[in-house]
Amino acid sequence: MTEFIPPGTRWFELPSPFAMKRGSALHGARLAYETWGTLNPARDNAILILTGLSPSAHVAANAGNPEAGWWEAMCGSGKAIDTDRWFVICANSLGGCKGSTGPASIDPATGSVYRLTFPELSVEDIANAAFELVRGLGIATIACTFGCSMGAMSALALASMHPGATRTMANISGAVQSLPFSIAIRSLQREAIRLDPNWNEGRYSDLAYPEQGMRMARKLGVITYRSSLEWSGRFGRVRLDGEQREGEDPFGLEFQVESYLEGHARRFVRQFDPNCYLYLSRSMDWFDLSEYGHGDADAALRTIHLHKALVIGVETDILFPLQQQQQIADGLHAGGADVTFAPLPSPQGHDAFLVDIARFGPAVREFLESLSCT
Amino acid sequence: MTEFIPPGTRWFELPSPFAMKRGSALHGARLAYETWGTLNPARDNAILILTGLSPSAHVAANAGNPEAGWWEAMCGSGKAIDTDRWFVICANSLGGCKGSTGPASIDPATGSVYRLTFPELSVEDIANAAFELVRGLGIATIACTFGCSMGAMSALALASMHPGATRTMANISGAVQSLPFSIAIRSLQREAIRLDPNWNEGRYSDLAYPEQGMRMARKLGVITYRSSLEWSGRFGRVRLDGEQREGEDPFGLEFQVESYLEGHARRFVRQFDPNCYLYLSRSMDWFDLSEYGHGDADAALRTIHLHKALVIGVETDILFPLQQQQQIADGLHAGGADVTFAPLPSPQGHDAFLVDIARFGPAVREFLESLSCT
Repeated sequence: MTEFIPPGTRWFELPSPFAMKRGSALHGARLAYETWGTLNPARDNAILILTGLSPSAHVAANAGNPEAGWWEAMCGSGKAIDTDRWFVICANSLGGCKGSTGPASIDPATGSVYRLTFPELSVEDIANAAFELVRGLGIATIACTFGCSMGAMSALALASMHPGATRTMANISGAVQSLPFSIAIRSLQREAIRLDPNWNEGRYSDLAYPEQGMRMARKLGVITYRSSLEWSGRFGRVRLDGEQREGEDPFGLEFQVESYLEGHARRFVRQFDPNCYLYLSRSMDWFDLSEYGHGDADAALRTIHLHKALVIGVETDILFPLQQQQQIADGLHAGGADVTFAPLPSPQGHDAFLVDIARFGPAVREFLESLSCT
Repeated sequence: MTEFIPPGTRWFELPSPFAMKRGSALHGARLAYETWGTLNPARDNAILILTGLSPSAHVAANAGNPEAGWWEAMCGSGKAIDTDRWFVICANSLGGCKGSTGPASIDPATGSVYRLTFPELSVEDIANAAFELVRGLGIATIACTFGCSMGAMSALALASMHPGATRTMANISGAVQSLPFSIAIRSLQREAIRLDPNWNEGRYSDLAYPEQGMRMARKLGVITYRSSLEWSGRFGRVRLDGEQREGEDPFGLEFQVESYLEGHARRFVRQFDPNCYLYLSRSMDWFDLSEYGHGDADAALRTIHLHKALVIGVETDILFPLQQQQQIADGLHAGGADVTFAPLPSPQGHDAFLVDIARFGPAVREFLESLSCT
């Protein structure tokens, strides 16, 4: 599975055994990560970035890998996350397939790939693994934990389980728990993969690979990551040129939006491990911050005590709708944080943080500049 | 395919040949329909109902079939569509599988099922077939044409192509054209069916049937027919009881919303013909009222001259968002109609007209009571 791992990836050996929230433990597990900038002598300028479901730790170009990363426009010298000032760490999610131990990794106990024998994964495990990494790098307190999408759940989990671990937080397009609509979407994505005969209860190979299931899952993902508004402006009802069409097939690609989805699917299906996708996807369904507030998510948020927080949401997000970010902002404020809530009118939906740098950049820059640490 | 046809269905023989908009023609085609109430001597109390993608013509119980229909709460003696006053006709869509000629029917030229040799279907063909039915029943002018969802497209097509055919219209959760978001959803539904090995380029049988593809298509449909808001209130994060769970499978049904989708899929997959689904689905992508306004949908609406129109939309509809109904209301008003626009706060999304009778019923009743015909 090495083809999924960006060059320049670094590894952190997790404590062994590493206990998993829903039971069982990992032995000899490791976390992939990358860094930018320099940790200052006071060790108080660290930013931790927790990612969405699929990205690697390669946020931006660095010495180990000069290729552009998934948040290249946001992170770098002089950018909103200014690596001249901050020591930026991005942890690849435990359970994923971009270098961290996950279902596609070798189980040292058997010498075989874990596949479905990997223990049940929770967002808390992802957060705990990232916490261990930060501790392992000699950082007692994170200046600011960034979390986007699933990473925003991980950030809340980290702050709930490890009081004082982070002074501030930038929580972007996040949620304290998954709504049934997003559970339904993810359930359907998983079903598409699991119904693919090549999935074969997780025992696929490169030659017999659940490509159709992954393609369906990815297309459905892209539909819910963006927004109807964006696509109306971007694609309208424009048809493909004749040469791009699939002959006379009335059900073949005809509209630009169909070709766009097809392109996204093609780029993804062989770049992400299907079993890892299932595990990460289900962990989002399960996540529920209310467990830290006796069944009350607002109460759980109030137990998180941060100095400052930036909470960003997007009006066109159908997967994690804006009320969910409002809830986080209100709850962190009730917990004592000085909260900036930024509901942005980005047309790009849930994924806006990846592309609408014109709006997200200034919000992030202003927040980080307001932080008093070095 | 007789299992799809409700008892009590009546048939109308379409003119033969029946020309199809995108080319070719049907020979010996027929339309399934049902009626309620009595046509008055002046023949001016007819209501025509054009349906969404999947319903049969069985709107409500009648002499031929006492079973409840898909709009039972709306249509009947003393109900909003009062069959004591109105002669109600519902035409099953041409190209469907609930009795009308479609891809699952026998092609008289070959003696074999059409399957993918059925000519390309357009919304206009559906509208023209319904128009022929109305004419065949001896009705020169329809008092009110009802169209819901795809049927709302058909109603606009009918009024555009046959000026004077209908005096008024109740256009419900409709659109003058499909937005790229809904094209994307339908494209994915079709892909799920077409990727199912049992689909076999349309040559499936009851024994080798594309059940997995149909199940995915239906689940995705249900997700987009309802709304996140409704499901948050209805399901929240409630789990299934232990006995309803699928053992220890971490990817099995666990949340109520997953079980709900599963139930919908099970009820649908063997009750709708997959090829018919593909044809009807694609016809919605293709429909574009702007063809009747030199590329301008608003101009096309202005050429429709109705006495009155009721246009209903729902705030939570993600498939045909409310702006699309606002556009129809504005355009029909510009064409001279006395328009009532009812944007309803129903939580149930696109399908609200089927279930939120508390809101839709009074709107429809008031509109029909305002009509001056008998």
